[in-house]
Amino acid sequence: PTLDIVVLPGDGIGPEVTDEAVRVLDWFVTHRAVPLRMTRHLFGSAAWAAERTAMPDRTWAAIMAGDAILFGATGSLDQTHIPPEERRKGALLTMRRALDVFANLRPVKAQPALAEASPFKARTVAGADLVFVRELTAGVYFGTPRGIETLPDGTRRGVNTHAYTDAEIARAARFAFQLARTRRNHVTSVDKANVMEAGRLWRDVVSQVHAAEFPDVTLEHMLADNCALQLGRAPTRFDVIVTDNLFGDLLSDCAGAINGSLGMLPSAALSAPDADGRRRALYEPIHGSAPDIAGKGIANPLGAILSAAMLLRWTARLPAEADRLEAAVASALDAGARTADIAMPGEAVLSTRAMADAVIAALDAG
Amino acid sequence: PTLDIVVLPGDGIGPEVTDEAVRVLDWFVTHRAVPLRMTRHLFGSAAWAAERTAMPDRTWAAIMAGDAILFGATGSLDQTHIPPEERRKGALLTMRRALDVFANLRPVKAQPALAEASPFKARTVAGADLVFVRELTAGVYFGTPRGIETLPDGTRRGVNTHAYTDAEIARAARFAFQLARTRRNHVTSVDKANVMEAGRLWRDVVSQVHAAEFPDVTLEHMLADNCALQLGRAPTRFDVIVTDNLFGDLLSDCAGAINGSLGMLPSAALSAPDADGRRRALYEPIHGSAPDIAGKGIANPLGAILSAAMLLRWTARLPAEADRLEAAVASALDAGARTADIAMPGEAVLSTRAMADAVIAALDAG
Ligand SMILES: CC(C)[C@H](C(=O)O)[C@@H](O)C(=O)O
Ligand SMILES: CC(C)[C@H](C(=O)O)[C@@H](O)C(=O)O
Repeated sequence: PTLDIVVLPGDGIGPEVTDEAVRVLDWFVTHRAVPLRMTRHLFGSAAWAAERTAMPDRTWAAIMAGDAILFGATGSLDQTHIPPEERRKGALLTMRRALDVFANLRPVKAQPALAEASPFKARTVAGADLVFVRELTAGVYFGTPRGIETLPDGTRRGVNTHAYTDAEIARAARFAFQLARTRRNHVTSVDKANVMEAGRLWRDVVSQVHAAEFPDVTLEHMLADNCALQLGRAPTRFDVIVTDNLFGDLLSDCAGAINGSLGMLPSAALSAPDADGRRRALYEPIHGSAPDIAGKGIANPLGAILSAAMLLRWTARLPAEADRLEAAVASALDAGARTADIAMPGEAVLSTRAMADAVIAALDAG
Repeated sequence: PTLDIVVLPGDGIGPEVTDEAVRVLDWFVTHRAVPLRMTRHLFGSAAWAAERTAMPDRTWAAIMAGDAILFGATGSLDQTHIPPEERRKGALLTMRRALDVFANLRPVKAQPALAEASPFKARTVAGADLVFVRELTAGVYFGTPRGIETLPDGTRRGVNTHAYTDAEIARAARFAFQLARTRRNHVTSVDKANVMEAGRLWRDVVSQVHAAEFPDVTLEHMLADNCALQLGRAPTRFDVIVTDNLFGDLLSDCAGAINGSLGMLPSAALSAPDADGRRRALYEPIHGSAPDIAGKGIANPLGAILSAAMLLRWTARLPAEADRLEAAVASALDAGARTADIAMPGEAVLSTRAMADAVIAALDAG
């Protein structure tokens, strides 16, 4: 059956990079008979401009009926012209929560072709190949009470609540251990158990799930500050890193420095499987909307294109096609294709469109 | 008047590195007539072993009567033989809070001599010279409610509260702006205002303090995840970074990768000045107790020694002497002095003691 892919270009550079990811997926529809139907829907600022709502009912209906979302980027802080209620409705966070896509996969792989462009020495990053399983639907992003209150004496106080239940931790841990079995069988669980009780529960539950169900996988616990350091010192030591929503946000950006640009990095957010083994899925490059370069046609589309590869792997369940696309990206880079964010001084710089052309040429050739 | 320095060697490698910092400060007492009296006191595991309390009354009395603390390291998670109540009493966090040392300075400077040892390319880190002002006495480290609760249905839930008042934010911001005026006049304030209300208040208050009192200083706001990335991509773009307790913990470790080892990094935690302009102060290397190498005499004492330099600057108020010590550390490194954590393969490795000897030799020579 044809898979319905709901395309939400979103804000800033979202539309430009998403167009290229769609073009690449079209290649797979045409040349590899991958059964995808992609339909664009309004979301975020664009929806607001057109219909005075950030999440039109039609978009939401399409999401609920569809098999996966291919997402571009969302604005957030710069959307001050959108009223708060609408902002919340349109926000990525609401979508993550409503779809219950608790497992956020963020793979980071050192690209040999980008060794020169990387801020790191080649000896530091060569061979780095790690993946975050970031818990995406709980923690301080969603905890209540939250807000800014004014106390009787006039003091203003900002409050957020960091909370995790054992079930929320266990399902993230289980996902990480299962994923590790398909990789190098090693999980690093990251918390601040020395300071936060929620971190102590995190550590306990991960250890329990490990002992009860995955004794064959190697588990280490690491404090979040140490993990930030080790991602810079020795990223090759990691395989699967499982951590909470906030630590996952920061630490995956630490790791983002490995190739020198967030523009390279894809992600998938997945729910638990239903009775047929199908997961709800939200695919998005981890870069933001980058309003400073929006509309110029210079953004790096590889994060979006590699997110499309994750869609081939997790929604279409065609790992060989996902591998094919990842290999095409690597070979475009090997052949010297560079957008501005990953170019060295003096290197020829491609537009967003031309970079995608290079990937498609590699697909045609491969 | 002679300044009373309360020396708390603490756990793990704390005693080894603190001994060397004391030896270096003794050099300043002897050769530069710096008026310091240093007295060791029991704290942490050592106090527990000797007196069945992690924070003996005598130690606390000495701290309250003294002018500053020179701290080694504390164990935390590995102190499972100490009952929780005692652990809390002995903990670094309690001391930080009780002394109200809200401003945690964590300078990070690329050492040219360590360019080879750094995981980064020289072009990335050359010239990096930044300092964190990490808020140290509020936020999720101290917020209540906190704990692990069991709900009626058996669910366990871990909770911590991230909270900041406007006054807590304002004093950290003020400290950062004042510090920036003595440096390159640039402050980056870091939060997650796009997700957390406490971060929105943080951003508001920092902007208000800036507009009202420090319009001459350049201020930029940055999201914490982006800061993690930029510390890896372009650390030279930062001067003063002001942020909350938890982000400061992670981000300063990100920056710790610049020289390849946390062993190099000092810190000072300072209170507001009293009527005489004196601040309570807690100096400590930012590395932890490193139980795996404790007692071997191989730990890097430079973090502790550079913390002693911060003591010369902030408690003794002798910036020229602080500069002298920092220059001696740089010249020992220039001359090739290396502990194991910063040595390249094939380089001669010094013991903790010999590294301090190299610094003292540089002081003698200088
Ligand atoms: C845009 C923002 C809400 C989001 C987050 O903090 O999760 C982004 O940084 C990410 O990592 O996907
Ligand atoms: C030991 C631990 C409680 C402490 C912290 O998290 O603040 C340490 O990591 C630090 O940065 O000083």
